Amino acid sequence: MSTIDALKWRYATKKMSGEKVSQDKIDQILAAAHLAPTSSGLQPFKIIVVTNPELKEKIKAVSYGQSQITDSSHLLIFAAWDSYTEERVRAVYTHANKERGLPDSANVDFVNQMVAVFTAKTPEESYQHAAKQAYIGFGVAITEAALLKVDATPMEGFDPAALDELLGLRALGLRSTTLLPLGYRDAAGDWLVNLKKVRTPLEDFVITFS
Amino acid sequence: MSTIDALKWRYATKKMSGEKVSQDKIDQILAAAHLAPTSSGLQPFKIIVVTNPELKEKIKAVSYGQSQITDSSHLLIFAAWDSYTEERVRAVYTHANKERGLPDSANVDFVNQMVAVFTAKTPEESYQHAAKQAYIGFGVAITEAALLKVDATPMEGFDPAALDELLGLRALGLRSTTLLPLGYRDAAGDWLVNLKKVRTPLEDFVITFS
Repeated sequence: MSTIDALKWRYATKKMSGEKVSQDKIDQILAAAHLAPTSSGLQPFKIIVVTNPELKEKIKAVSYGQSQITDSSHLLIFAAWDSYTEERVRAVYTHANKERGLPDSANVDFVNQMVAVFTAKTPEESYQHAAKQAYIGFGVAITEAALLKVDATPMEGFDPAALDELLGLRALGLRSTTLLPLGYRDAAGDWLVNLKKVRTPLEDFVITFS
Repeated sequence: MSTIDALKWRYATKKMSGEKVSQDKIDQILAAAHLAPTSSGLQPFKIIVVTNPELKEKIKAVSYGQSQITDSSHLLIFAAWDSYTEERVRAVYTHANKERGLPDSANVDFVNQMVAVFTAKTPEESYQHAAKQAYIGFGVAITEAALLKVDATPMEGFDPAALDELLGLRALGLRSTTLLPLGYRDAAGDWLVNLKKVRTPLEDFVITFS
């Protein structure tokens, strides 16, 4: 299936069936998000995978009671760094150098510059920037789920502070950013499934300077 | 090619060859981004496509002189709404109702609620929220380019205010958010192409609550 066909097939699933998604497909969706590009390669976000039914119930309670949370097979939570710190930035490049067989002396000036640039941001600027990187991975994960014919519901509709508290995310230096329940549609119970997918007209969406 | 293989193949291309990408592939990349999901379906961003060589030179000048701008085949600029306004929000749902054959009376309360929610944001909150939606489309476009074996360079490294001025974006209610030059790698001239792709270890990236 082409990406276009997959993206036309997908929709923000409102009712899921509870059917399990295979671990192989979950792993492919996570691997795709893991490969997503991010600013300066920092990957300032993590994905939290929740399958525990009791925990999903608690998350639903801080997500306006939306049933996809509990009817999903796996709930992904995209959580971005709450701030850029010198330690976090240096750790990324130390790891990259090690993987590439380079000494840390190979790019001292570059790394110092990255530390200066990223730690100059206020905590809120840092989080907003990190969150945007998480949205790239979110887009990649949504695309891969659709290509694998796994339903997903991209969600911003939850109480981030309450979810952070529930999962202890601030102690990990993280803030919850988006949710992505994964599962299979319960077409008979879903009011959205048969509504035509609508996008702004393509001729208004694309502006050409040729 | 699987998405995973495509995402492993891609990299932030530092040197492009100038070779043209076919219009068919450009259209598929735009169509994928156009189908990307966004908050409440508002699609609060546009994609500007630049092929004009003189204009690309001017954009390079406000993008730290990065050569991908001018060596690309097509430069995509993701530009988000500078604010949510009642007019913009209502227009989206009026269009959707028309496409779905529904009267506007079908969802008056919902639309009024969306207007209230989105226009309550400050302009800066609005822009930050709209920009995040653009990053979803950005992630989808990057994925589709890789699947089509089109090289791309996701870029935040430019002067947004200068680019907005150059293209007259503020008069359109838009702010430039990210750049995505599309083209083909000039492997012989690219210092990054042969460096190992490194990501944070998967076991650190994924946190499981099972």
